[in-house]
Amino acid sequence: MQFYLNGLRTGDPMTEPAAEGAPQTVLPDTTDVLIVGSGPAGLVLAAQLSQFPSIRTRIVERRAGPLLMGQADGVACRTVEMFEAFGLSERLLREAYWVNETVFWRPDAQDRGTIKRTGRVQDTETGLSEFPHVIVNQARIQDYLLDVMRRSAQRFEPDYGLEVVDVQRDDTDDYPVHVTLQCTDAGRPQELVTVRARYVVGCDGARSRVRTAIGQTLRGDAANHAWGVMDALAVTDFPDIRLKAAIQSASKGNLLIIPREGGYLVRFYVDLGEVTPENRDSIKQTTVDRIIETAQGILHPYSLDVKEVAWFSVYEVGQRLTERFDDALAPDGTAREPRIFIAGDACHTHSAKAGQGMNVSMQDGFNLGWKLGAVLQQRSDVELLRTYSDERQPIAQELIDFDKEWSAMMAAPPKDPGRPEAGGVDPAELQAYFVRAGRYTAGVATRYRRGMLTGEATHQALAKGFPIGMRFHSAPVIRVADAKPVHLGHAARADGRWRLYAFSDAGGNALRGLCDHLATAPGSILRLATPEHADIDSVLDLRAVLQQPHREVRLEDLPALLLPRKGCHGLVDYEKAFTSDAATDIFDERGIDRERGALVVVRPDQYVAHVLPLDDYAELSAFFRPILRLP
Amino acid sequence: MQFYLNGLRTGDPMTEPAAEGAPQTVLPDTTDVLIVGSGPAGLVLAAQLSQFPSIRTRIVERRAGPLLMGQADGVACRTVEMFEAFGLSERLLREAYWVNETVFWRPDAQDRGTIKRTGRVQDTETGLSEFPHVIVNQARIQDYLLDVMRRSAQRFEPDYGLEVVDVQRDDTDDYPVHVTLQCTDAGRPQELVTVRARYVVGCDGARSRVRTAIGQTLRGDAANHAWGVMDALAVTDFPDIRLKAAIQSASKGNLLIIPREGGYLVRFYVDLGEVTPENRDSIKQTTVDRIIETAQGILHPYSLDVKEVAWFSVYEVGQRLTERFDDALAPDGTAREPRIFIAGDACHTHSAKAGQGMNVSMQDGFNLGWKLGAVLQQRSDVELLRTYSDERQPIAQELIDFDKEWSAMMAAPPKDPGRPEAGGVDPAELQAYFVRAGRYTAGVATRYRRGMLTGEATHQALAKGFPIGMRFHSAPVIRVADAKPVHLGHAARADGRWRLYAFSDAGGNALRGLCDHLATAPGSILRLATPEHADIDSVLDLRAVLQQPHREVRLEDLPALLLPRKGCHGLVDYEKAFTSDAATDIFDERGIDRERGALVVVRPDQYVAHVLPLDDYAELSAFFRPILRLP
Repeated sequence: MQFYLNGLRTGDPMTEPAAEGAPQTVLPDTTDVLIVGSGPAGLVLAAQLSQFPSIRTRIVERRAGPLLMGQADGVACRTVEMFEAFGLSERLLREAYWVNETVFWRPDAQDRGTIKRTGRVQDTETGLSEFPHVIVNQARIQDYLLDVMRRSAQRFEPDYGLEVVDVQRDDTDDYPVHVTLQCTDAGRPQELVTVRARYVVGCDGARSRVRTAIGQTLRGDAANHAWGVMDALAVTDFPDIRLKAAIQSASKGNLLIIPREGGYLVRFYVDLGEVTPENRDSIKQTTVDRIIETAQGILHPYSLDVKEVAWFSVYEVGQRLTERFDDALAPDGTAREPRIFIAGDACHTHSAKAGQGMNVSMQDGFNLGWKLGAVLQQRSDVELLRTYSDERQPIAQELIDFDKEWSAMMAAPPKDPGRPEAGGVDPAELQAYFVRAGRYTAGVATRYRRGMLTGEATHQALAKGFPIGMRFHSAPVIRVADAKPVHLGHAARADGRWRLYAFSDAGGNALRGLCDHLATAPGSILRLATPEHADIDSVLDLRAVLQQPHREVRLEDLPALLLPRKGCHGLVDYEKAFTSDAATDIFDERGIDRERGALVVVRPDQYVAHVLPLDDYAELSAFFRPILRLP
Repeated sequence: MQFYLNGLRTGDPMTEPAAEGAPQTVLPDTTDVLIVGSGPAGLVLAAQLSQFPSIRTRIVERRAGPLLMGQADGVACRTVEMFEAFGLSERLLREAYWVNETVFWRPDAQDRGTIKRTGRVQDTETGLSEFPHVIVNQARIQDYLLDVMRRSAQRFEPDYGLEVVDVQRDDTDDYPVHVTLQCTDAGRPQELVTVRARYVVGCDGARSRVRTAIGQTLRGDAANHAWGVMDALAVTDFPDIRLKAAIQSASKGNLLIIPREGGYLVRFYVDLGEVTPENRDSIKQTTVDRIIETAQGILHPYSLDVKEVAWFSVYEVGQRLTERFDDALAPDGTAREPRIFIAGDACHTHSAKAGQGMNVSMQDGFNLGWKLGAVLQQRSDVELLRTYSDERQPIAQELIDFDKEWSAMMAAPPKDPGRPEAGGVDPAELQAYFVRAGRYTAGVATRYRRGMLTGEATHQALAKGFPIGMRFHSAPVIRVADAKPVHLGHAARADGRWRLYAFSDAGGNALRGLCDHLATAPGSILRLATPEHADIDSVLDLRAVLQQPHREVRLEDLPALLLPRKGCHGLVDYEKAFTSDAATDIFDERGIDRERGALVVVRPDQYVAHVLPLDDYAELSAFFRPILRLP
């Protein structure tokens, strides 16, 4: 955590000084970005945009206030990595339940009316991420993000109690998206308000009005699948009640148990089957008592005494997806600049089973946030915004494919060894699939395809452990100047900056050459990309990882670019140079070419954009030219 | 972190539901405890007392509001351990500078007008604590503690702008300490207010009026030592500016550099020598420019360009101590019940050099807090309160002895190898002393003597790594029910409860026997100590550490006392049983007798009170009988 660059301030350094006029409590006529909906996608986007003081953002929400309860709760490793960039990982890890192991239960072969533990696996493969898979109520996740917004210079809060009634686009206006809003509180005046925005993002859920306005439709499953979901405080003698447990009974149905934060609360997912026109009404009317009875039946011979139901819902969802996540195709089929985006459930819906919905939605917001930031700060051309739909739509499709497979497996009856002809899923198969699918559910399987932001894999061999298009997989290092053990990936803050991780060559000459080039060459992409009077790392943030033990590094010998002078006082930033940790050598750990080193280019949302030789200045510039607006 | 035991609440689980009538903003006529002074000692005490909803506490402070800047900044490992019990360790570790290594510089033998690095050591011995030694402004430490108070059921805030003018004791009153207060704000009415309290604690600094009122005097050094202390944002080519650096120059003096939070700020301590009647005025008038010049001289040939001085003080202190920390000796020399206590600088002052003042003061508050809590909750007799002065006064004396030695070493001129007859300290000697003194400065050397709260070491061999009288040295374990890797010591919350850590014998029979005894025997100290209708762990919290790998433990086989039913719903607490971590076997790590096991009794302030055989029920009861008020 760096602060006090421009002088010491008293108070909490995590809270930015308030901008003049902040907070602006009245909804303005115009705004740079209007976000519709304060769910996970909308709040990650808002939290990201709140980090750019020059950008005006508003977020409107139908509800009268913040979410208090319920809905999603699974937080994938990848999401915790993102939360680290927002400064939220510690409190999340402190408060959440950690999914350490998952157990599988199946009908006891000796007595098929009862269940028996058949497997126990580590939930997350060792080394997959520096963070665990955790569980916490979606309301708390949203509170954390609201807190980030509140601490920003704009002291940013959502505008609650407003819903969209109309969205129009008028490209003759500097603020081409006109959104008409209506108050949802019957007690307040019902006149309509129009906000004109440069960009609008619909994070307004599966019934998105923004989606409808841009003519997109959720397509996919003909039918929905239903789950009874219950957060309960209960007493049971089922021994795995504090482990994630997938339970298949012989004839009573299937149950997924997810322990929750605080040590007592447990979430139960009871499978209610496919929704048909015939059964829809009866499924919708499933009572909490029925859910409890079903869970009790499945858990037999163990008892379940529910003392308090904190939240309950019959959750009905199909796996559906829109064709695009923006309005870059005009109604007449011609291409145009995207001005309206959709994110989260507005453009893709998933079964609850793989615990992916909230996580993927937040990654939508993280993907779009820095891009809107770069365009609105005039660092990038609008072309950048096309990559949002291009990148995220295929990822959502992949997720749905995965989710379908997974949900089908979870929903199918277990195979009866006595009656193999009756079909069903072999519990061993379910467990094996679970292990294979681990990277997916951890959120680290996402791989963006070759494109404007994802380079060709020509030099991938220089850094095998940082696959281009995938998230930067952090590893421990030592920071040279203060000998602190840190995670290299945690250099990435959610500040819209690109990171250039330069892993030194054996001799160090190529690293020095790169630093000299970037610092002084007239064609240096770093010099060209940095606005006048801005800190030298304000667009491209160079970090170096050296090969020698940290006590052998002489700070005096570091290239000047690794000790840059910054801020109003020209202070030295000492946090640019690292070396391998004694216990974990990052060069080995991530397959870096020790002889030649490697330059790993990482996007503001933590994805590896390119891997290049340290001395391939031309290719580095060529990669950034289409992305950055240069003089 | 456990919460929702008595039902789910929305919002931040770290914030307790407000008690009726909280916050009470008007200073009441009577209170259980009145704390004078909101420095580190006073705020730790207040934060601790805020955890007991039935106890009424107020804290008055002369200043008009919270501390904003300056003063102490070193946070010893031991203090971070205590902060963990208050739920504050994550934010402290995130925000603070970590002291990873310390370097030593001395005059260059080739050119004694310049300095040269002569040593570099790890600051904290490996394994000394699970937490690092960190540095953060005292104002931030105090903010964290204020936050704990604010989140308590009482929504507790200090009463600012009030100073003590008189303290009287009248043992005929139920509230025997009468404190007269006056408003320090000249703009407010100046009438005097009297608050009557059951107990008063003077945490009002070196010029304590509470100390004067109980007739105690700080005794010790005839003269004070002076230091120029400056928090600065500076540019330098001194390569170790982000490491803790002890610098001895040949003739310009000595300098201690302490890097600070945020990556840019640095604290400089310049030695100004002993204060005599002759030089006092000139020392007091030392300007910040003079301090900067001196630092520049010492750092030669390196440059130092100070851009901003965030805080500056000439700090003049002697090593002094009072005879008692309470009023348990009446003016006529007879013993009486202690009603007035002093803590922190009010009863012991230290040189700034060893970075101990703030840490020891906070431990005073932590020591006294749970004792006042136990007596006011009628769990213990007033005898318990005598142990505060009995325990803390000798610790302060030891600290002063250590501090004197250390300060003398830091202040002495370095030995000139060319002129050994001139005396001075050999830099190698300084460095060696530093390494030896590491446990002291980490705050983990404190060892309470045999007494009411510190048992005889008869059975110490059963758990060699948990010395009786010293703080419980945590180690990693796996929590059985949810397979979570945790630190055993972090089971200790600042909640006034005792912990009984039962390390299983090889066969497990002795552990089972202990659990059965505690749960069911008529003479069980645990049953006797637990108030009717209270949770079974509300006074003595039993935790067990088993020997087998966690996947081999069958939850069904655990003694009932390790799966206790608690709260209004009778929910099961699953966080009582642990096993060794695969990487670190706590039995090996802490020298536990594998055959016989051990029972380690730990006080509410994390100190080991006793080590006993698992089956020595009689001795366990005998130990607690004088401490706990039993039926």
